[in-house]
Amino acid sequence: MALVVQKYGGSSVGSTDRLMAVARRLIRAKERGDQVVAVVSAMGDVTDELLDKARAISADPPEREMDMLLATGEQVTIALLAMAIDTLGHQAISFTGAQAGIVSDAVHTKARIQEVRADRMMEALDAGRIVIVAGFQGLTPDGEITTLGRGGSDTTAVAVAAGLGADVCEIYTDVDGVFTADPRVEPLARKIDTISYEEMLEMAATGARVLQLRSVEFARNHNVVIHVRSSFNDREGTIVKEADETMEQAIISGVTHDTSEAKVTVRDVPDRPGVAAEVFGRLADANVNVDMIIQNVSEAGTTDISFTTPKDDLVRAIKAVGEVVADLGAREWSVDESIAKVSLVGAGMKTHPGVAALMFRSLADAGVNLDMISTSAIRISCVIAADQVDTAVRTLHKAFGLDERSVIAETAPAAPGA
Amino acid sequence: MALVVQKYGGSSVGSTDRLMAVARRLIRAKERGDQVVAVVSAMGDVTDELLDKARAISADPPEREMDMLLATGEQVTIALLAMAIDTLGHQAISFTGAQAGIVSDAVHTKARIQEVRADRMMEALDAGRIVIVAGFQGLTPDGEITTLGRGGSDTTAVAVAAGLGADVCEIYTDVDGVFTADPRVEPLARKIDTISYEEMLEMAATGARVLQLRSVEFARNHNVVIHVRSSFNDREGTIVKEADETMEQAIISGVTHDTSEAKVTVRDVPDRPGVAAEVFGRLADANVNVDMIIQNVSEAGTTDISFTTPKDDLVRAIKAVGEVVADLGAREWSVDESIAKVSLVGAGMKTHPGVAALMFRSLADAGVNLDMISTSAIRISCVIAADQVDTAVRTLHKAFGLDERSVIAETAPAAPGA
Repeated sequence: MALVVQKYGGSSVGSTDRLMAVARRLIRAKERGDQVVAVVSAMGDVTDELLDKARAISADPPEREMDMLLATGEQVTIALLAMAIDTLGHQAISFTGAQAGIVSDAVHTKARIQEVRADRMMEALDAGRIVIVAGFQGLTPDGEITTLGRGGSDTTAVAVAAGLGADVCEIYTDVDGVFTADPRVEPLARKIDTISYEEMLEMAATGARVLQLRSVEFARNHNVVIHVRSSFNDREGTIVKEADETMEQAIISGVTHDTSEAKVTVRDVPDRPGVAAEVFGRLADANVNVDMIIQNVSEAGTTDISFTTPKDDLVRAIKAVGEVVADLGAREWSVDESIAKVSLVGAGMKTHPGVAALMFRSLADAGVNLDMISTSAIRISCVIAADQVDTAVRTLHKAFGLDERSVIAETAPAAPGA
Repeated sequence: MALVVQKYGGSSVGSTDRLMAVARRLIRAKERGDQVVAVVSAMGDVTDELLDKARAISADPPEREMDMLLATGEQVTIALLAMAIDTLGHQAISFTGAQAGIVSDAVHTKARIQEVRADRMMEALDAGRIVIVAGFQGLTPDGEITTLGRGGSDTTAVAVAAGLGADVCEIYTDVDGVFTADPRVEPLARKIDTISYEEMLEMAATGARVLQLRSVEFARNHNVVIHVRSSFNDREGTIVKEADETMEQAIISGVTHDTSEAKVTVRDVPDRPGVAAEVFGRLADANVNVDMIIQNVSEAGTTDISFTTPKDDLVRAIKAVGEVVADLGAREWSVDESIAKVSLVGAGMKTHPGVAALMFRSLADAGVNLDMISTSAIRISCVIAADQVDTAVRTLHKAFGLDERSVIAETAPAAPGA
């Protein structure tokens, strides 16, 4: 008997029919003899509808009350899913985040799970019930309702799996797993069978949208095995787990891309100690996430500083940069929104020199100019022009032999997204 | 400084505009220097929409999950109302039933409040905040979400007022207060300024829909002063409180009517000890509420038994009666759905003999035939034909002098309902 956590997103539970399909899948797992926990999101557009209601009242509603409001979305889903299982003749029980023992910090709208007190879930499982947990939400030790922010339901699922000591946390999605590249860009992309936490983290951080970064971090920290798979079929998806010798030893696991960032450049900043600290301190104060940073070589006592930031943060970034330019006596600043980031991720690059060289050479041969470069031990990212991103992805996918295996592994289906 | 609880029903918070109006009213109370608690229902048709969602999945959903589902309705309202107050520049905090310390028993869909642990509300009030509480819901000692059934938000408001030791519990509604009769039936009905718990209980039990019976019981048991008033104006409504010598000493406080019941008659039941116990025991087992009962004089060893029951319980009642008829060897049973109950309520009838006689005489003169009669110390109810109910109400209203005072108290407005 295994203990399985299954997570279903908003589109998987977006209608009565889909909810019934999820109920049937949970029951199948139960009938195989497993103990089953479902973690679910709000149905379809419910969260957006709630946001609209809030916006009709306030341009800037208190975050505590936003959490109070948004948490109702998942609560509706869990109740209806429990009813669906009941009507199919099986026993289920739904739990809000609070009831499931999801203890979070008090940072409303983006709280972090601190602890999962799993007793109540465990009791219900031992009583033979399918347990249904509201994703995306928690309760602070003071009894305040919180939400976990974007991708929070994935994190709830992983945290519940950790708290229960589950054998696997299955993340159901509309694609077959994690792919070597986005199949919409590279039709030859193939599904990855297993991938390490480290690689998945880099892929999630650089554009693979199938799993949220925070849930992978949580899984790594608590050694939870994640199985990313399709809610439309029964095929094996992608297993995300601790790297071990049984794992396929590709040098490069995948090519990711991200067009959600913009580049900001500040020109002719006085080149003296503390200037970078000043610039990025201001940005941090303004709650701006900064990804890549480049500072040019000094010329005549001034330098240029460029950084990339999510377009969502751009308004705040521009405001902060405008102030800092004035204060520091810099010449000007500019924004380029038509950039893209293409990344190579692979644990093998630690032991295989020459990956960067082959990457840069391939892109150069394809006429793709590199604007910024950043690296980690298992990742190389380049900022390029947005209109060259498809070319860059396909070029790298081929150059690093990811295509060829795709041809061999013909069983891997062409899925609609990554 | 007074501590005021204000309760707003679903229609009072049914749109963004109305929610803003409620926010402004709460703020006005706060600015008068009072400590203010709002208890609110789900917005407009939200509860019905949730019920539809449940019915699309299950004909008979588990009641625990219904409560999980329905409790979201009020949670949306409290969050939006807190946002509305915030956007108007005042401090508010919303609490679910659980957070407000509403402890209930575990009878899902019609739970009863056992206790209100008011510490958290008190703290927020002392911090100068307007406290907003989700009506209609509670939490069991085991952490299960419950709902309180029909009229539950009124009961929440009274319980919160009791728990906080509030000076008054204001129930906002779409009429100006409690009337001597339903103004839609009797245009000369006048608003009652003060009424005792006992009389209000009898009126609520016999058809005055402005206050739910359970909330009045709760108010009497905890000596909470209720002020029933309109959410559309600032006029004084009806005060419901312990009877005292300052209260107006009308013999009759009001005439109520109720067309929500049906009459069931079982004919030729063997007239032996225990038969009535058998019949009504079966009905109780079937969860059928029985109001009035008449057993005819025995003829030739058999008797007829008639009782009235809410039409909502009629299907269950007929099933139980069918079984009991077969078991007891009774001849037949019949149902009359076209009945009405008209009632006179007044504490004065305890000390004024002749009320019943005048009532029966007036109805007879008006051509209204009496089918069943029941009385309490301060109430007389008659079952009549449904199509005579308007005539009966107007006849009694006039016969007991309720009209005349209406003419004197011309300031009382003609409101659209009772």
